[in-house]
Amino acid sequence: MRKLFTDIKAIHGIEDNTKSLLKGAEMSRVVTIHDAWLLTENGNFANWGSMQDSDLPKADEIISLHGLEVLPGLVDSHTHCIFAQLRSGEWEMRLKGATYEEIAAAGGGILNSAYKLRIMDEEWLYEQSLWRVKRMIEHGSTTIEIKSGYGLSIESELKMLRIGRRIEKNVKATIKTTFLGAHAVPPEFKGRQDDYVAHIINDMLPAVCAEGLADHMDVFCDRGFFTPEQTLLLLEAAAKYGLPAKIHANELGITGGVQVAAKAGAWSADHLEHIGNEEIECLRNSEVMPVGLPGTSYFLDIPYAPARTIIDAGLPFALASDFNPGSSPVCNLQMVWSLGCSRMKMLPTEAFNAITLNAARSLRLEKSIGSIAAGKQADFWITETHNAIQSVPYFFGVNHAKTVYLSANQA
Amino acid sequence: MRKLFTDIKAIHGIEDNTKSLLKGAEMSRVVTIHDAWLLTENGNFANWGSMQDSDLPKADEIISLHGLEVLPGLVDSHTHCIFAQLRSGEWEMRLKGATYEEIAAAGGGILNSAYKLRIMDEEWLYEQSLWRVKRMIEHGSTTIEIKSGYGLSIESELKMLRIGRRIEKNVKATIKTTFLGAHAVPPEFKGRQDDYVAHIINDMLPAVCAEGLADHMDVFCDRGFFTPEQTLLLLEAAAKYGLPAKIHANELGITGGVQVAAKAGAWSADHLEHIGNEEIECLRNSEVMPVGLPGTSYFLDIPYAPARTIIDAGLPFALASDFNPGSSPVCNLQMVWSLGCSRMKMLPTEAFNAITLNAARSLRLEKSIGSIAAGKQADFWITETHNAIQSVPYFFGVNHAKTVYLSANQA
Repeated sequence: MRKLFTDIKAIHGIEDNTKSLLKGAEMSRVVTIHDAWLLTENGNFANWGSMQDSDLPKADEIISLHGLEVLPGLVDSHTHCIFAQLRSGEWEMRLKGATYEEIAAAGGGILNSAYKLRIMDEEWLYEQSLWRVKRMIEHGSTTIEIKSGYGLSIESELKMLRIGRRIEKNVKATIKTTFLGAHAVPPEFKGRQDDYVAHIINDMLPAVCAEGLADHMDVFCDRGFFTPEQTLLLLEAAAKYGLPAKIHANELGITGGVQVAAKAGAWSADHLEHIGNEEIECLRNSEVMPVGLPGTSYFLDIPYAPARTIIDAGLPFALASDFNPGSSPVCNLQMVWSLGCSRMKMLPTEAFNAITLNAARSLRLEKSIGSIAAGKQADFWITETHNAIQSVPYFFGVNHAKTVYLSANQA
Repeated sequence: MRKLFTDIKAIHGIEDNTKSLLKGAEMSRVVTIHDAWLLTENGNFANWGSMQDSDLPKADEIISLHGLEVLPGLVDSHTHCIFAQLRSGEWEMRLKGATYEEIAAAGGGILNSAYKLRIMDEEWLYEQSLWRVKRMIEHGSTTIEIKSGYGLSIESELKMLRIGRRIEKNVKATIKTTFLGAHAVPPEFKGRQDDYVAHIINDMLPAVCAEGLADHMDVFCDRGFFTPEQTLLLLEAAAKYGLPAKIHANELGITGGVQVAAKAGAWSADHLEHIGNEEIECLRNSEVMPVGLPGTSYFLDIPYAPARTIIDAGLPFALASDFNPGSSPVCNLQMVWSLGCSRMKMLPTEAFNAITLNAARSLRLEKSIGSIAAGKQADFWITETHNAIQSVPYFFGVNHAKTVYLSANQA
């Protein structure tokens, strides 16, 4: 099936399909062609060119895009979008002066989500989570990573990951799941953190892998959560099951997370609100993609990952939503793109590459998604907003996506 | 024509229709009823009650809202939504380090908008601006104030205000226009600021009023713009034509704007990023509504108006978008509500009242809009988001309005 999209004002984000990531000064590069056509074949991008060409390619279907602009599908590489309910009450507590850590200590935070999720009917949890994923897709995210970690028991972690796989089957976007049993220590293991680590390794991980429910393993390595030593044990155990590592690192302090990520060969180290030169050197000597989560910094009013320092050091950088009910209630990756610029001083082009090709790389999916390149999945969205790479993040707080096209529907 | 809306999960923002504004501790009050019906009659709210009532009122039409929540239409009391084009290029300059004032000095800023607007075809400007107003309405704003001020010549100011009136005729929302010839000094009057003030008073104001194009007069009273003395002259001249005053005050420094507002009996003093005790005392002894514009503070990375101090001093407070291409490219008042909480530490209820009843008061429209009250215009919107007063501003960067109902369509 060949589909020809015509009358496109601009196609943004065309990138050589051998390029696996963009780093340093390269990150400000976005290739755009104007007054264009775009051809897809069996769900993949096939070719593009100018409407001035004397012959347009033949196709089974021709769709005019009436002067709108085309961008590649956005990649949200870090979300916690399966959850029982919004935690706006805790937010109101914070507005009155409580800190995130105080709320966690008072039984709120991740454990509050875990409590609510454990008692929630699986069907209802699935419906709610599916609704959220559909909202994310409407806002242009065509690849979404989803973590467990609000279960913190075998039964509830499996419940979350099964829902992740059900969502994968029931939407046309690309869904990847991550086992995050080590998101917090559940109340049953209070004061026995090492026992919980052993439980994850000996009981939860085998159960998750027996059903093939996870694509990656993740650990919250930070002050008050898991130590670097525990994190390494967990990631090494996961590696034995073939699960690649991702990591929550350096959100609350300089706590060794980046170093563990490098040692474990993690695909990404996410958060990075607190890093210094040592962490940057460590990232430079690794294949770990640094991932910033500006929605969290904005919402918790904590420092932002030093994107400028990272990029100016010649490194790559990705951005994700961290969509979750406690620290980042934002499902719109265009808003994250905007925060990356307004708050981290990334250029619009840099932040665009951070939610497309580099985000794909953080999931090691850069060969199939993340840019408009021949042979990649034909995931893209169209917008009425002119000069979209600059104007979408500038004109913030709304959805600029008029229609989202998913590869699975082009086949 | 009586319309009965049934199966409403919650109706928020019911307020006694004799209440003209909420101040101090009252601002955290929002009256909500659950499991409700809502009756409109000839485009006005008529009554509401519980779905458990034994008899529901008779109506010409019955519409089930299927368990969604109802909020009163939002009131955006300060916008510059008639403009020629986005200024995302200037934003990129700022991301690279230039300040707002440096950009203005380099010919950008308001004068850049004025240059582009003057040469823009009126029909095209109307179409673009109408498109923006429709976006604002989709996001729940049912009353919108629109300022001139990107013309800065008789011809171009009239062009803007005529477009404002055309928009008023062609949408069902409530539109009010404001003459802001004193937004900046145009290049033709460079170095002759007093001459420009005289030109506004002697030539522009009479022309605007002869056609009945403006509902209010506004002046940008600040460092580098108009002095308090010039502002007072301008507002007194407007008063002779029956035009009530609004004012841009204290955005760039403690520059006397609030005092002029009080002296001129202005309906509102907007911005207020830089105010001290003296300004708060001055507001307390006046009928001036203080209006914060957090989109501007967020986007320019300047201080926020001290909402907490103002409310805790027992004063009322309103919020608006300041939607404009240079300093606040945000048309979604729900995002402004969110910024009011996250950045100004207003409670969700306080910020809600700041974009409904108090915003209506800043336009002296509190008798007809701003809350759900018998006899007020039946402007409202519905959302799937549960516990909307807390959750809409929490779950930020998206549009929570599923459908917006305008009074003019209920009649």
